[in-house]
Amino acid sequence: MSARMPRYRITIEYDGGPYVGWQIQAEGASVQGRISEAIARFSGEAVTVKGAGRTDAGVHALGQVAHFDLARAWDPVRIREAINGILRPDPIAVLDCAEVPADFDARFSAVRRRYLYRISTRRARPALELGRVWHIPRPLDVEAMHSAAQALVGRHDFTTFRAAGCQAKSPVKTLDRLDVSRRGEEVHIGAEARSFLHNQVRSMVGSLRLVGEGRWSVGDLGQALAACERSRCGPVAPPSGLYLVSVAYPEPSAADVPADLA
Amino acid sequence: MSARMPRYRITIEYDGGPYVGWQIQAEGASVQGRISEAIARFSGEAVTVKGAGRTDAGVHALGQVAHFDLARAWDPVRIREAINGILRPDPIAVLDCAEVPADFDARFSAVRRRYLYRISTRRARPALELGRVWHIPRPLDVEAMHSAAQALVGRHDFTTFRAAGCQAKSPVKTLDRLDVSRRGEEVHIGAEARSFLHNQVRSMVGSLRLVGEGRWSVGDLGQALAACERSRCGPVAPPSGLYLVSVAYPEPSAADVPADLA
Repeated sequence: MSARMPRYRITIEYDGGPYVGWQIQAEGASVQGRISEAIARFSGEAVTVKGAGRTDAGVHALGQVAHFDLARAWDPVRIREAINGILRPDPIAVLDCAEVPADFDARFSAVRRRYLYRISTRRARPALELGRVWHIPRPLDVEAMHSAAQALVGRHDFTTFRAAGCQAKSPVKTLDRLDVSRRGEEVHIGAEARSFLHNQVRSMVGSLRLVGEGRWSVGDLGQALAACERSRCGPVAPPSGLYLVSVAYPEPSAADVPADLA
Repeated sequence: MSARMPRYRITIEYDGGPYVGWQIQAEGASVQGRISEAIARFSGEAVTVKGAGRTDAGVHALGQVAHFDLARAWDPVRIREAINGILRPDPIAVLDCAEVPADFDARFSAVRRRYLYRISTRRARPALELGRVWHIPRPLDVEAMHSAAQALVGRHDFTTFRAAGCQAKSPVKTLDRLDVSRRGEEVHIGAEARSFLHNQVRSMVGSLRLVGEGRWSVGDLGQALAACERSRCGPVAPPSGLYLVSVAYPEPSAADVPADLA
């Protein structure tokens, strides 16, 4: 067992509906808060759980990643089972837990974040997918949306698609992928980047929707980007359709593996 | 417009989680009750909504079918929109509404019912699919389950797989299809028949699970069927994983089409 304080990485799925978001707030249950409470319960230690992405209220995760340190070493499988047992029946599940090097940081070590946005275009409002999709009961021109989206791919000043309260130092980000495709009665928008500005995906989706409805031309989206003005953004899409799908990290080199695992 | 009292058929999706089931009970909200209330609200008429399948509490529907009569004729699209608007935010949605011949009966005219049962076999308990699957965190032998299931296909006395309180006159039913397949981290069981006994699908799934776990041999399922004894059934599967997928009716002949639609 290593002498240092062990650090653990957890991969988490959650339904964002019942929570004020990932981050602990003055009022209301947060995903971060519920997980911290569960860790304190089994370990007796007060920990700070740091997440890769601070998802807003109502935003879901298929693969959020977080890390925390414990004074005492635990079997990662026991940590996973303990959190899942304690949190039942909260719609939060730890999918995986692993010990990681002390310099691993769920937020700052991440090299790629993947989001999915789901729009249901069927006539009737969602029942089984209530709170899981954005309901737009009109046909959307998916080809126009996908074509317009390509203007946002690459390194740009994303001021237009950034929340007023965004705390990032720079509005310049590199968007690696923005794909729009039809899946039965749904339209799926996939976005990939090292990191995103606050509300960036929902802002891009809200604007893409205008393209899909024919209210914006394909070229309008690129012009909104080039304007670097928040007022040029379409109405921001609701949180219910957004999923943090996965967060990727560099492959650890042999030197990064904790001594007791090498 | 036809002179007779018009009859309407609705196709309904719902999340069974918040309800005591399809059927109106002395206590608690039922899907049938909520829809009847919505129809009364927009039409001013007290109606009896008759469903094709009386799903239990917690059982979901992707395509339940029901019918009702109204003294006054309405545009079916307006009926659909009115019910969906009134029921918001209940997780019940009318997908389709159509006027049908007076002899159409959602329950007795049905020629085929299709059910899906979803089992999640992943290690971590469900979060986004909480209440939507049966969680069995162990590998299941899907091939053995499918093979065993074939002994139930055909015309049989299904006493072994029938709830104690089942009100059907005869335990003899013809099961047309019972397929078990793997879908990623889930096992899907599809069942098709003209009609089912009460709890038949959940009873068959509960027994198939024992085959999947290796606690029953492939032949044990057929022997349990042949025994015609309720005590030979495996523990009944929970309602959360069950979906009434669709109900099929004979194609109407030209003579069946209401005069005003012909």
